[in-house]
Amino acid sequence: MWPGTRLTELLGSRLPIVQAPMAGAQGADLTIAVCEAGGLGSLPCAMLRHEQVRSEVARIREQTEAPFSLNFFCHAGAEPDPDSEERWRRRLAPYFVELGVEASSTDAAPSRSGFDEAACALVEDLRPPVVSFHFGLPEAGLLARVRATGARVLSSATSVEEGLWLEERGVDAVIAQGAEAGGHQATFLRADVTDVSEQVGTFALVPLIASAVRVPVVAAGGIGEGRAIAAAFALGASGVQVGSAYLFTEEATIAPAHRAALEAAAAAGSARTALTNVFSGRPARSMVNRIVEEVGPISADAPAFPSAGRALAPLRSAPEGAAQFASLWAGQAAPLGRSLPASDLTRLLWDEAVAVAGQFAG
Amino acid sequence: MWPGTRLTELLGSRLPIVQAPMAGAQGADLTIAVCEAGGLGSLPCAMLRHEQVRSEVARIREQTEAPFSLNFFCHAGAEPDPDSEERWRRRLAPYFVELGVEASSTDAAPSRSGFDEAACALVEDLRPPVVSFHFGLPEAGLLARVRATGARVLSSATSVEEGLWLEERGVDAVIAQGAEAGGHQATFLRADVTDVSEQVGTFALVPLIASAVRVPVVAAGGIGEGRAIAAAFALGASGVQVGSAYLFTEEATIAPAHRAALEAAAAAGSARTALTNVFSGRPARSMVNRIVEEVGPISADAPAFPSAGRALAPLRSAPEGAAQFASLWAGQAAPLGRSLPASDLTRLLWDEAVAVAGQFAG
Repeated sequence: MWPGTRLTELLGSRLPIVQAPMAGAQGADLTIAVCEAGGLGSLPCAMLRHEQVRSEVARIREQTEAPFSLNFFCHAGAEPDPDSEERWRRRLAPYFVELGVEASSTDAAPSRSGFDEAACALVEDLRPPVVSFHFGLPEAGLLARVRATGARVLSSATSVEEGLWLEERGVDAVIAQGAEAGGHQATFLRADVTDVSEQVGTFALVPLIASAVRVPVVAAGGIGEGRAIAAAFALGASGVQVGSAYLFTEEATIAPAHRAALEAAAAAGSARTALTNVFSGRPARSMVNRIVEEVGPISADAPAFPSAGRALAPLRSAPEGAAQFASLWAGQAAPLGRSLPASDLTRLLWDEAVAVAGQFAG
Repeated sequence: MWPGTRLTELLGSRLPIVQAPMAGAQGADLTIAVCEAGGLGSLPCAMLRHEQVRSEVARIREQTEAPFSLNFFCHAGAEPDPDSEERWRRRLAPYFVELGVEASSTDAAPSRSGFDEAACALVEDLRPPVVSFHFGLPEAGLLARVRATGARVLSSATSVEEGLWLEERGVDAVIAQGAEAGGHQATFLRADVTDVSEQVGTFALVPLIASAVRVPVVAAGGIGEGRAIAAAFALGASGVQVGSAYLFTEEATIAPAHRAALEAAAAAGSARTALTNVFSGRPARSMVNRIVEEVGPISADAPAFPSAGRALAPLRSAPEGAAQFASLWAGQAAPLGRSLPASDLTRLLWDEAVAVAGQFAG
C-alpha cells in the first residue's frame, strides 16, 4: 500500500504526486519546478493557443528530463445560444452600470477549447509522456490516436460510474476528484452537470472508486499537506493530485487579488468556497466573492460552458473587479496552503507524508 | 498520533470509535453492542420521550459497564408558521391525491425535541458518562448544569468557525462532521442553515479544525471501514464517529425499505445521496428517492426544522411510501457497508484500521 510503485512506474515520476493542471493559473515554470523535485508536473492546455503549447513544451524539455503531463479539456462545444447569452447579459447589467464599464469589449475573455483534430495532431507531434483529460474523454478515434503515441492517459471521475466508464475506455489511471477540489469538477455523466447536489467528498469517493476499478487511483480534492497524502493512501489511492497548494507558489501566474485572497484564507485558517457556475457555465470551486454570493453559486441564467465567462470580462478588468467578479479558484483545504517555491513545496509534501506514515509505525 | 489515548482517556472507552447517535434508527441494543466491543455506544434521545430514555439507560447499565453517550438535539424551537405549513401542504397535495391518502392524520409523525429544562433535569438524574449535542449547544445555564454532572461534553462542527465556537464554550472534544455524513448536518452558525453550498468535505474539514482547536477532534462523515479510520488519524483526528456503517447491523431499527436501499447500495458499490431538507426542514443526507428528486433536494417550501416531516407522515405510511417518501439516511460511504452484528463490526473496524496502520510501517 505505502508508498508502492504502481503510479510512479506508470508515470515515470519519482514521487506519486501529480501537480494538478490549472488552466489560466500557470505555465511551464510550475511544471518544470514540480518535475525537477520528482513530482509529475502538468501543463494545462485548455486556454493556450497551439503555438503557446509548443513553446511551453520546448521550454519544459529544455529544463527537465523528467516526464510531464499535458492536460486538455474535452467537453463537447455548446451550440451558441443567443437567448441564453442575452438573459445572462441582462442578469449582469446592473453591475456594468454600477462599475461604469461597457458591456461591449467581451472578446478579450479567455476561452476554453475542447479536444479536436488539431489538438490531437499537436499531441501526436509533441508526444508528451502523459496526457490527462478533464470532463471525460475525447471521442474514440482521437483517444486511440493519443494512446498510439505511447502516452499514458489519465482522466478524472467524480462518481463510481464515471470511474468505471473511464476504465472501460482504457485510461491508465483514474483521478478520483472529490467535491473539495478547487476549479472545475470533472463531472461528465450527469444529465445536468450544473446540478452539484450529489457531488461526493474525497473521503468517500477515493475508497468507493478504489473498490470499483482495477487501475491505480489518484486522489484529488483537499490534498495540500503530507497528512492528506498519507490519508489518501490509507483510503486506497496509489498517488495524489495537488492543486490549490501550488497556487501559493511563486510559479503560479494568478492575479494579485487571487493571491491575496488565498493568503488571507491561510492567515485565517478558513475560507468560504462554493461550487459555482457563474465564471464559466460549469460548476467549479471558487472562494465566495460578490458575484458568487449575489448571482450564484449556481445560476440558471449562466450560459453553457465555457461561454458564461465571456460576459464577465469587462467587470473583471474594472477596479475591484479582480477580487469581486473574477474566479478565485480554491479547494476547501486551501487555507492550509504555504507560500513556498514549487520545488520546495513538492519535497516538503513528500517529507511530511513520510513522517506521517512513520508515526503509524509508532 | 496513532492510535494515541487522547480520546479514549477522555471518554473512558477502550477504542477511539464513537457510534454515531442516529435518532429514529436505533435504541439501546446498538448502544450496548458497541459498548461491549469497546467503542463508545450512543443513545439518541431527540425522538424519545423521557420515560423511554430512562428505560433505555437502565437497560444499557444492566448490560454493560462500559461508558456510553446520550445525544440531544439543541435547536431552538421554531415558532409555528401556519403560512409555511400551508404552502408545504399545497406543495405535497398532488402526492396525497396520487397515493389516495388523507392529509389529516399528521399527528403521528415523530417530532424532535430540543434541550430544555426538563431534558437537563433528566441528564442530572441519569448522569450519563458522555453527553453529545447536535446543532450547537444548549443555552449557557443548561450547559453548565450538564457539565456539573461530570459528563464529558461533545458537539459537532461543520466549519472551522463552529469548531472554535464550541471550544470556546468548553466542549471536551469537537466532532468534525464532513459533508459526506448521513443524516442531519450539525450546521448552526450559518444565517440560513438550509444553504448547503459551502458545506466542507471530511478530507478538508478534519485537518482544518484539527489545526484550529486544542481539544481532541473526532472525525465524522464517510467513515465505515478501517482504511477510513486510519485516514482520519493521518489527517489529525484523535478518533472517529461512525454512523451509516451501523445502519447495516441487525441492531439498527430502520424500516425494511431503508435497509433494502442500503443493501442495494452496497451491492452496487454506489449510491446517489443528497443533502435535503424535505424530511425535516434542515439539511440531512439521504439516499435520493422520489420526494428528494421531485421536491428537493433543498425546497424553499419546507417549513423550519423539525416540522417539515409532519406533513409527510401519511405518505410514508402508504404502500411504497416508505421507499419513496421516507428519509433513507445514508452517508456517502454507505455503499461500503457490511451486514454484521454491531459488536463484530466494531471489532472489525478496529482490526482493519490496525492492519492499514501496519501497512505504513512496511
